[in-house]
Amino acid sequence: MRDLDWSEERRVVGENSGNNEPSKLVCKTMYAWGDPVSPHLAAERENGAIEDSALLEMLQRCLEIGVGKEKMDHFCVVETAGGVASPGPSGSLQCDLYRPFRLPAILVGDGRLGGISGTISAYETLKLRGYDVVAVVLEDHGLVNEVPLASYLRNSVPVLVLPPVPQDLSDDLMEWYDDAHNVFDSLMEIMLSAYSERIKRLHDMPKRAVDVFWWPFTQHTFVPEGDVTVIDSRCGENFAVFKNDDVITQQFDACASWWTQGPDATLQTELARDIGYSAARFGHVMFPENVYEPALECAELLLEGVGKDWASRTYFSDNGSTAIEIALKMAFRKYSHDHGILLEPVKDNSAERCPELVLLTGSYHGDTLGAMEAQAPSCYTGFLQQPWYKGRGFFLDPPTVFLSKNMWNLSLPEGLHSLDLNVKNMTFCSRDDILNKSRDESDLAGIYSSYISHQLSKFPESKGLIGALIIEPVIQAAGGMHMVDPLFQRVLVNECQNKKIPVIFDEVFTGFWRLGTESAAELLCCFPDIACFAKLMTGGTVPLAATLATNAIFDSFIGDSKLKALLHGHSYSGHAIGCTAAAKSIRWFKDSDRNPNIISEGSLLRELWDDKLVYQISSHPAIQRVVVLGTLCAIELRVEGCNAGYGSLYASSLVKQLREDGVYMRPLGHVIYLMCGPCTSPKICNQALTKVYRRLEEFSKSQQN
Amino acid sequence: MRDLDWSEERRVVGENSGNNEPSKLVCKTMYAWGDPVSPHLAAERENGAIEDSALLEMLQRCLEIGVGKEKMDHFCVVETAGGVASPGPSGSLQCDLYRPFRLPAILVGDGRLGGISGTISAYETLKLRGYDVVAVVLEDHGLVNEVPLASYLRNSVPVLVLPPVPQDLSDDLMEWYDDAHNVFDSLMEIMLSAYSERIKRLHDMPKRAVDVFWWPFTQHTFVPEGDVTVIDSRCGENFAVFKNDDVITQQFDACASWWTQGPDATLQTELARDIGYSAARFGHVMFPENVYEPALECAELLLEGVGKDWASRTYFSDNGSTAIEIALKMAFRKYSHDHGILLEPVKDNSAERCPELVLLTGSYHGDTLGAMEAQAPSCYTGFLQQPWYKGRGFFLDPPTVFLSKNMWNLSLPEGLHSLDLNVKNMTFCSRDDILNKSRDESDLAGIYSSYISHQLSKFPESKGLIGALIIEPVIQAAGGMHMVDPLFQRVLVNECQNKKIPVIFDEVFTGFWRLGTESAAELLCCFPDIACFAKLMTGGTVPLAATLATNAIFDSFIGDSKLKALLHGHSYSGHAIGCTAAAKSIRWFKDSDRNPNIISEGSLLRELWDDKLVYQISSHPAIQRVVVLGTLCAIELRVEGCNAGYGSLYASSLVKQLREDGVYMRPLGHVIYLMCGPCTSPKICNQALTKVYRRLEEFSKSQQN
Repeated sequence: MRDLDWSEERRVVGENSGNNEPSKLVCKTMYAWGDPVSPHLAAERENGAIEDSALLEMLQRCLEIGVGKEKMDHFCVVETAGGVASPGPSGSLQCDLYRPFRLPAILVGDGRLGGISGTISAYETLKLRGYDVVAVVLEDHGLVNEVPLASYLRNSVPVLVLPPVPQDLSDDLMEWYDDAHNVFDSLMEIMLSAYSERIKRLHDMPKRAVDVFWWPFTQHTFVPEGDVTVIDSRCGENFAVFKNDDVITQQFDACASWWTQGPDATLQTELARDIGYSAARFGHVMFPENVYEPALECAELLLEGVGKDWASRTYFSDNGSTAIEIALKMAFRKYSHDHGILLEPVKDNSAERCPELVLLTGSYHGDTLGAMEAQAPSCYTGFLQQPWYKGRGFFLDPPTVFLSKNMWNLSLPEGLHSLDLNVKNMTFCSRDDILNKSRDESDLAGIYSSYISHQLSKFPESKGLIGALIIEPVIQAAGGMHMVDPLFQRVLVNECQNKKIPVIFDEVFTGFWRLGTESAAELLCCFPDIACFAKLMTGGTVPLAATLATNAIFDSFIGDSKLKALLHGHSYSGHAIGCTAAAKSIRWFKDSDRNPNIISEGSLLRELWDDKLVYQISSHPAIQRVVVLGTLCAIELRVEGCNAGYGSLYASSLVKQLREDGVYMRPLGHVIYLMCGPCTSPKICNQALTKVYRRLEEFSKSQQN
Repeated sequence: MRDLDWSEERRVVGENSGNNEPSKLVCKTMYAWGDPVSPHLAAERENGAIEDSALLEMLQRCLEIGVGKEKMDHFCVVETAGGVASPGPSGSLQCDLYRPFRLPAILVGDGRLGGISGTISAYETLKLRGYDVVAVVLEDHGLVNEVPLASYLRNSVPVLVLPPVPQDLSDDLMEWYDDAHNVFDSLMEIMLSAYSERIKRLHDMPKRAVDVFWWPFTQHTFVPEGDVTVIDSRCGENFAVFKNDDVITQQFDACASWWTQGPDATLQTELARDIGYSAARFGHVMFPENVYEPALECAELLLEGVGKDWASRTYFSDNGSTAIEIALKMAFRKYSHDHGILLEPVKDNSAERCPELVLLTGSYHGDTLGAMEAQAPSCYTGFLQQPWYKGRGFFLDPPTVFLSKNMWNLSLPEGLHSLDLNVKNMTFCSRDDILNKSRDESDLAGIYSSYISHQLSKFPESKGLIGALIIEPVIQAAGGMHMVDPLFQRVLVNECQNKKIPVIFDEVFTGFWRLGTESAAELLCCFPDIACFAKLMTGGTVPLAATLATNAIFDSFIGDSKLKALLHGHSYSGHAIGCTAAAKSIRWFKDSDRNPNIISEGSLLRELWDDKLVYQISSHPAIQRVVVLGTLCAIELRVEGCNAGYGSLYASSLVKQLREDGVYMRPLGHVIYLMCGPCTSPKICNQALTKVYRRLEEFSKSQQN
């Protein structure tokens, strides 16, 4: 290994010109080894291994030196060693290694025999890592390789041809440089114009966005052009965000992009390749009555994983909301079947016979009408938003658990207090005490049971029948995020199943390790009849949802007529691309060889959020409570009156400051939350949480003034 | 160019063995040229060009010779020329050229310096075409390239190493063959076991499928294991289907996989690359308050294309059903706003103030509850399927147009007859006469107008208010497919817009050239206030939907509170992968350089279905009527009584026979239909239609007996 760092710096023009003009060309060799082999091999042979992180840091420093006060007065070219996918010193492929920078690429192609194929494949490897190729340049070998290359590229990327390099080693190349001058000039022009076009495009994007987009859940008057975030790309858990000073910086995606995200950079690359493969192999093909590998693989993995020991059938749809609507149709049929309702010769959908739901107050199951009917009246359901909403449920206030002032607390709903059952709010030493199944033997279990029976007995006959129970382990309330006491959920599930009321688990948010176990069933230690999955299922790539069901549910749709089948399906049901991504992610997340966070023989995620820091935050005067579980750390700010709830803007300034720190959060009313992926290293979680704690201190002081 | 065809056939072992044993090795050189350059260049220089289709046919023939009666007694290896992406004789890349066969690949890697990168890139090029790589084999050059390769492949593909090939040209290689023997043996074993595993897997798939899938719109008792279609892959418009005799055959996807499909093989490859790029660059990133290139590009293309001259805003969701639910929320807000309903201080969703819809009988807008409320009572809406259904509409019977007995006919609804307005069913010489906008001046326009006014005046006050009109150019009825008279739709839109009732176009099926124009707005010559798109939008790859709206609609959600915003959004709103695919497809379909079917300066598709044949079918005694428009050719069988409607199995035998002919159809009740892509060549359409006609003849005879 030769000297590292700046040893090879040479000011080429400066040395030759002999005057005091600033040098035009500065070359730095970041690393070099003696043996002319692949860097990973040279590093190994010469004991000169370099960690990826060290290499990236050095590159970052070099690029920063290149960022002057006056823009565009110089530019940096990073020349990699070998081919696009040659290993770097650590063994990581260079196309993967440098990916966080996503620098525009100039691909040095091959003008020799076989060079068309080699150049196209190298181009595709770069595209499959999310790089933009600005130009292809190759040496002329008389085979006009540039013609098929330009045709393949559909003239969208310029292909430049350099004259043949003299083979005579004594040639000083001066003549060749003269011949090649025009090509290098063009190349520089292409690089510069690609750069300015890119910056201009990024610069103009907010203005165009506020003109054409209609963002969901967004009051557009609150989002002026200057507040629009321009996302250039994602690499694992981070966004690359374009800022006003023409700099691209990294932000940790702490909202997990509406709770969809899970992959680190390695899984993202693997998903991209698998998704590309699936698109090329299948595109999309018709699902009903057909079978193809990705759908079958995905369905089986779901049944063996989140559906283990209870589910027998996989029903695909597109998102959590449709998965819930399908679950409702399944539950109602089963309920009608079990209670002999279908036998009556009535064809109308009259109110008296209409199945209603048992639901937890504050739960939210999706935005389509059917899913919205399954929530208590809220800011989402009024005439202004959804004039058809009726509220098809009987709503139970659940007991919740949370961390506050270093203690885990149980908060009981008023209904339970008023029962005068001699219980009061309790505290626990640790979250494990709450999750412990031995609580089934406690007095509280009996109290919950009486409370639930009592509540269900109040269900008004006039409303119809109880056709299903839907639960979710963490409910959002309007602007909150509350963890329901698992014991309560278990007792409730049990009560309903005893009454032959089908139980639906809404696992759209919780599925696939969100809360530290692969499924809520594992967290709650009980089984549903039906469960809905989406979000993280495809590793955060494309929409896909699944409703799993028991065989008993499935059987209630079997008959001698198509009209008895479940007549609900979306065009892309079981689409190959989504199923491929899902199969990959489901396997990856639970594989301890791939995911270092997997512990307890594959059944748990290790703690991702630093215990000490979490407890510190929970006892901060600005904080009401904290829920920390799996990949989630939700922090509720202490607010008063109108600052609470979904419409609250109370957390806005805090969130804005954290974005400056490189943490992209989104407030949920007066709750802020951090969410990582199942593979995210606790170190990264800790960095983000530390930033939050620091800003909380400031925020708290500013609120006091 | 040397002699083509069988000239180089040599029975290597047979010639040497000298006895009568059957030869163990047969080599055939399909094509060869003199010059050792890329085939496309050699073919050009030596005037030996070969059409792709001729080459594929010859390969097909060679492979068929390889298919013996006794399985596995021999196997074929197709050796390509040059690298995986080297051009074939026509200039098409060989990886694209041979794609319809999707043969398992043995990748000959590179053991030299730079060979890791070249081998990985070649592998990725194959994956990005949907190939499976069974093994990688490379020559040892002392650089242990196999180690990083195996690590990259995560040991999922074996990497074999051949001893260095002697450089001495006089070496007869016998010693080398001895050394390499074990490697070749392993390779053969790997090939054979990969083959048998693949066949076994394909063979077992139906059994596994009927065990775990719950297919939408499917009565599982009607789909025994033997009736499950095993789809190995798609290439453009064709499925590769695995049959019981272990053969993979091509079937034309005539149902366009629930009307989602559009790409030919070329676009599919480009989409796969772009989707892979987008997955690697973005995965998915949070949409609200953010902007990133694919979403912006897609939103703008939608507004400039299908939203041209009327739409100003793009609202993304996941499928047609959610797009409709969003459209309804938009329409109701606008209606309430215009009619001062929001000013009243009422907070409840009481029935008297509930907005209702004007709808066409027989229309279908999706499967979620909100979208189902927008259809007339049908087999989809009863208690058995959807107990919450009420039917929130006032349903108009529309006049329809269809081809029967060589004539285009107008069929008027009973309501119009009974008005005694002196009109009767009419005929037209051609479809163009029906589409002609000059019909606005006809008496019929006035009659339609009176009829509509009369009907709307019957809308019962007690039901609430008319909050929106939804139309679609082709309605599905229960088991039918009916084209509504465009003049009627135009008059209806006009009447509603005059009354300030927002008009929604359901373009989920019709958008992006399905019916020969880019949008239904162009077909109907009038503009909506809101329109919904999905299906073909992503080129048939992944779910994505868009609801477009005018600025006036958007403005009714502007205010000083988040609670006034449109609170409906799905996790993957505006996902990058879908938007990338959509932007590519939208551009491709209307680009006459890419899509040869584009005529009339980019505003129309040429006729895809042979006129003569369509007319012939329309006058067949087994046929009730035909609707042919753009990519659609729907054929309604003449049936009686219980054979009609959605539950009908009348067409099943016909559809089964056509699958044997390589045409994959799905019946829609007693209607069968062919659907191609916007780029499909009329030649392919004609082949499929001819097969249908032939089977119709037989079918008709069998029904008579």
